Amino acid sequence: MNVFGENWTFTSFGESHGVAIGGVLDGVPAGLKIDLTIIRAELDRRAGKGLVGVSSRAVHEPDEVEWLSGVLDGVTLGTPIAFIIRNRNARPEDYEYLKHTYRVGHADKVYEQKYGIRDWRGGGRASARETAARVVAGCIAKQELASKGIEIHAQLVQVGAETDPAKFVDTIAAYQQEGDSIGGIIECRINGLPVGVGEPIFDKLQAHLAFAVMSINACKGFEYGTGFAGVTQPGSAINTISGGISGGISDGTEIVFRCVFKPTPSTPKAGVKGRHDACVATRAVPVVEAMTALALINLMH
Amino acid sequence: MNVFGENWTFTSFGESHGVAIGGVLDGVPAGLKIDLTIIRAELDRRAGKGLVGVSSRAVHEPDEVEWLSGVLDGVTLGTPIAFIIRNRNARPEDYEYLKHTYRVGHADKVYEQKYGIRDWRGGGRASARETAARVVAGCIAKQELASKGIEIHAQLVQVGAETDPAKFVDTIAAYQQEGDSIGGIIECRINGLPVGVGEPIFDKLQAHLAFAVMSINACKGFEYGTGFAGVTQPGSAINTISGGISGGISDGTEIVFRCVFKPTPSTPKAGVKGRHDACVATRAVPVVEAMTALALINLMH
Amino acid sequence: MNVFGENWTFTSFGESHGVAIGGVLDGVPAGLKIDLTIIRAELDRRAGKGLVGVSSRAVHEPDEVEWLSGVLDGVTLGTPIAFIIRNRNARPEDYEYLKHTYRVGHADKVYEQKYGIRDWRGGGRASARETAARVVAGCIAKQELASKGIEIHAQLVQVGAETDPAKFVDTIAAYQQEGDSIGGIIECRINGLPVGVGEPIFDKLQAHLAFAVMSINACKGFEYGTGFAGVTQPGSAINTISGGISGGISDGTEIVFRCVFKPTPSTPKAGVKGRHDACVATRAVPVVEAMTALALINLMH
Amino acid sequence: MNVFGENWTFTSFGESHGVAIGGVLDGVPAGLKIDLTIIRAELDRRAGKGLVGVSSRAVHEPDEVEWLSGVLDGVTLGTPIAFIIRNRNARPEDYEYLKHTYRVGHADKVYEQKYGIRDWRGGGRASARETAARVVAGCIAKQELASKGIEIHAQLVQVGAETDPAKFVDTIAAYQQEGDSIGGIIECRINGLPVGVGEPIFDKLQAHLAFAVMSINACKGFEYGTGFAGVTQPGSAINTISGGISGGISDGTEIVFRCVFKPTPSTPKAGVKGRHDACVATRAVPVVEAMTALALINLMH
Repeated sequence: MNVFGENWTFTSFGESHGVAIGGVLDGVPAGLKIDLTIIRAELDRRAGKGLVGVSSRAVHEPDEVEWLSGVLDGVTLGTPIAFIIRNRNARPEDYEYLKHTYRVGHADKVYEQKYGIRDWRGGGRASARETAARVVAGCIAKQELASKGIEIHAQLVQVGAETDPAKFVDTIAAYQQEGDSIGGIIECRINGLPVGVGEPIFDKLQAHLAFAVMSINACKGFEYGTGFAGVTQPGSAINTISGGISGGISDGTEIVFRCVFKPTPSTPKAGVKGRHDACVATRAVPVVEAMTALALINLMH
Repeated sequence: MNVFGENWTFTSFGESHGVAIGGVLDGVPAGLKIDLTIIRAELDRRAGKGLVGVSSRAVHEPDEVEWLSGVLDGVTLGTPIAFIIRNRNARPEDYEYLKHTYRVGHADKVYEQKYGIRDWRGGGRASARETAARVVAGCIAKQELASKGIEIHAQLVQVGAETDPAKFVDTIAAYQQEGDSIGGIIECRINGLPVGVGEPIFDKLQAHLAFAVMSINACKGFEYGTGFAGVTQPGSAINTISGGISGGISDGTEIVFRCVFKPTPSTPKAGVKGRHDACVATRAVPVVEAMTALALINLMH
Repeated sequence: MNVFGENWTFTSFGESHGVAIGGVLDGVPAGLKIDLTIIRAELDRRAGKGLVGVSSRAVHEPDEVEWLSGVLDGVTLGTPIAFIIRNRNARPEDYEYLKHTYRVGHADKVYEQKYGIRDWRGGGRASARETAARVVAGCIAKQELASKGIEIHAQLVQVGAETDPAKFVDTIAAYQQEGDSIGGIIECRINGLPVGVGEPIFDKLQAHLAFAVMSINACKGFEYGTGFAGVTQPGSAINTISGGISGGISDGTEIVFRCVFKPTPSTPKAGVKGRHDACVATRAVPVVEAMTALALINLMH
Repeated sequence: MNVFGENWTFTSFGESHGVAIGGVLDGVPAGLKIDLTIIRAELDRRAGKGLVGVSSRAVHEPDEVEWLSGVLDGVTLGTPIAFIIRNRNARPEDYEYLKHTYRVGHADKVYEQKYGIRDWRGGGRASARETAARVVAGCIAKQELASKGIEIHAQLVQVGAETDPAKFVDTIAAYQQEGDSIGGIIECRINGLPVGVGEPIFDKLQAHLAFAVMSINACKGFEYGTGFAGVTQPGSAINTISGGISGGISDGTEIVFRCVFKPTPSTPKAGVKGRHDACVATRAVPVVEAMTALALINLMH
């Protein structure tokens, strides 16, 4: 479904080529100051502004957020915060050819099987465009968390086999030139989280983080603490590594997790025309931060 | 919290050294035949019967399930199914020394910080003993799934650096002799799942599987489809690998996911006396199946 | 909070004098035809078009629904349906005097105590204006129910002490002239509901209906079947009256319930200037139908 | 379903003539002292000890609560509290005749239609016996509320047409002698509740109270504040009566609500042999208090 969280809920809506996408936040406390400049900057970051290997459309036509409710004079009222981002380039005719085609590696076919109907206009809900609403919601969550001294910072730590950030731009550019694409790994660090966030036994903090992050398009794996690599280490060597979480509950130290994003299947090499995203992981960084913030804020309310 | 699922819920209770552990299942349809033999076998599997490197107590005193409600003449009534497993060896005096000690790598300290009180008797809720209740609940879910032709099969595919199953026993025995412990990777395959399980955009099937599996003690990572290893492959090479899930929805093909378990910190090498589990991943296999079943059944109701 | 339902959810947002009110429906199945004419007619009904004793503003400026997502060519897509109704007469200056005043019989004071902040612009969320969004959501639910042969029909059955519908207009007009207001009782009948809706033991059908209806502003009571009046009848006389619900579950016969609405406290007699609603119960009729539909649809999904 | 609440959950289980009934409470804070004497007294009160016109069985064989988890040395651990009450008189043979009969005014038929199977042993889950588990759960909630200065007190205020408590015993005795039964009205008062409990717009305090109380067997109506009787009063007369709730939120004054219980259909006059409850409302008093406590505690967590 399209509602995330139980106590601090984010309801997402909108097809990628409909009138608008948007969201409603319920449970944000009254009296929180919202910095709209940060939200705009995060949307630009998600659009890939300044990044190499990003399809151009989003960059040149920045997303404009319209605020409909819940905020008065820049301060939250404690009532639901609703916002929309209009789809300026809603040109269904560009996608007319998809009406009777399923794209490889996309959810077109399974959507039609599940619903018996499909919004063929550019992916509908399955499009990554919906992540713009996640970024807005996550930004508000991040500001509430920041007011409590909690900071979330994600960054790309691997592109293909490359782990030297200095070489990421060249690596991505090389795949772009070949009309191909490549995956990436994002590392996310949470600092300032007090002891006690997360609940035994099912609502463990790591389970909520995994749930939030694995719901992002193209994410294929999640690990924290000793992760998959830790499998080769004996207990005596890694006993004391908690990854910031003990028994499912934050222990007051820095939390570090990693997640992997697969390459987009929509590439010239795969027969899809036009510009393409050579490494979607680059644009996923603010989305990972947003979902992390939503997971934390939900557990803390 | 201790309730898993919204529509087919499993409520778990019980401290490891209290009177009993148990659970309540709400939402199981009426008329389902329950095979108690399978449940007993799964509990033995979780206890490590026949496995190398397993602490002996659980093996020699099999868990006995008492059924309190919801089943009449071996058939479910559509009412809540409640069961308990008594803790036969509830000897708090064995753990008296823990009253004022926190064990390394355990949740003792964080529990006390969160709750201001702690059941020092052998880990309380943080003990892996609670997974016995998960196995019973998961078994009933598996039987309901099996009645629809859905099969879940998990197995250990890596122990330390070893990936040849023929050598797992020796690998584990070696760590046991050293008084140390080692991690493992479990692979789980789901077959027979119809197209359409999972919901965009937050309730993606992979997100629910990750949430369920990451809630198991000692689990440090989850991946499916191309996983972490896929990061080095270009899109053109891995476009068509779905891992059985497309856009968050099952696509009718086999689902394969993997998860990693870290070694137990309670070892002779770490100063903890008595027998120990040299590789907890071996006993986690039926728990992974159980949680997979609970995640699926919840999404299908 | 502002989310109604678990499986077919309606998220409501918007302050009465902010930019817009609106809602998001999640869980509406794909392929449902939506008749916008009916929705408009229901909004007119809620606004009090053609009724005596209704404050004029809403009647002369009909609410216009903007559909943002979830519907393509008049048919639902299975994705969230978002809609907004702009607040045309958002003139905060009219309410400037309320900035430092609490109105008798209104929630102004308690909102400020709870949130530490208050949208003084005409009641904010506590205003009955939010029921317009309920009516839109309920209309879609009613159309889905109608597609299954389920009909909901509410009507005013008592105004003050008057139970003859032919005399309601005069009764209300009399209170209006005196600058006073009066309460009313609404009866709601559900026909065509199949056997089996409602769940033991907490999610009884009557409990869900009561929850839905009691959430409407000014509603002070709910009864079904033999109701309060039944208290004077011996079991032998009323044994067979089920009210359409048995053990919390619909039994296939007509369901009848009643609810009471108190008079508005905002009247000339109470010192509030301008036109007033002499009997808010008249405008609550479509809202009762809407909430009934939302309660039913949520239990049936 | 059988789970009440979202944050402080009570899961109920058990058929009236199975092995046991019981419950699990999740979300009770750690460190709360539990007075078992009060719980026993409340169970006696529900069983009708000392009341006129009560079927004798329950009175002579008091319910014994077995505590399985969540409490150590009389203090809550913050873990799930599980308890059971064994069904001592589980004599299915007494009910053998019901195997192929539906009782008038009971849920037998609708259960069989809904589930395709029915526990014919004395009503199964539809029996009022499950309210014993509600009373235990509610008692713990009441003790937590009492620790915050919140008191709940319910009492019978009407039996048939009789409103003088001094005459209730005679009124009930008269119906009992005739082999008939009669309904009653219970009034419940909540004192000490702080301002701010309840949420706009759907989770209004009165909606949660109505939901909780209307889920009790035989309850046919709920009203608060001016209630149904207020319909005949003009706004100018009843403006200032809040019933303790304003805009869905507690306003710090005493909350008063009333609910009506119909007479049991199981009477000698209706052809059911043996002793019978001439006025079930008398035994519902502690159940109303219990459900009120559960509604409040859930909103306050």
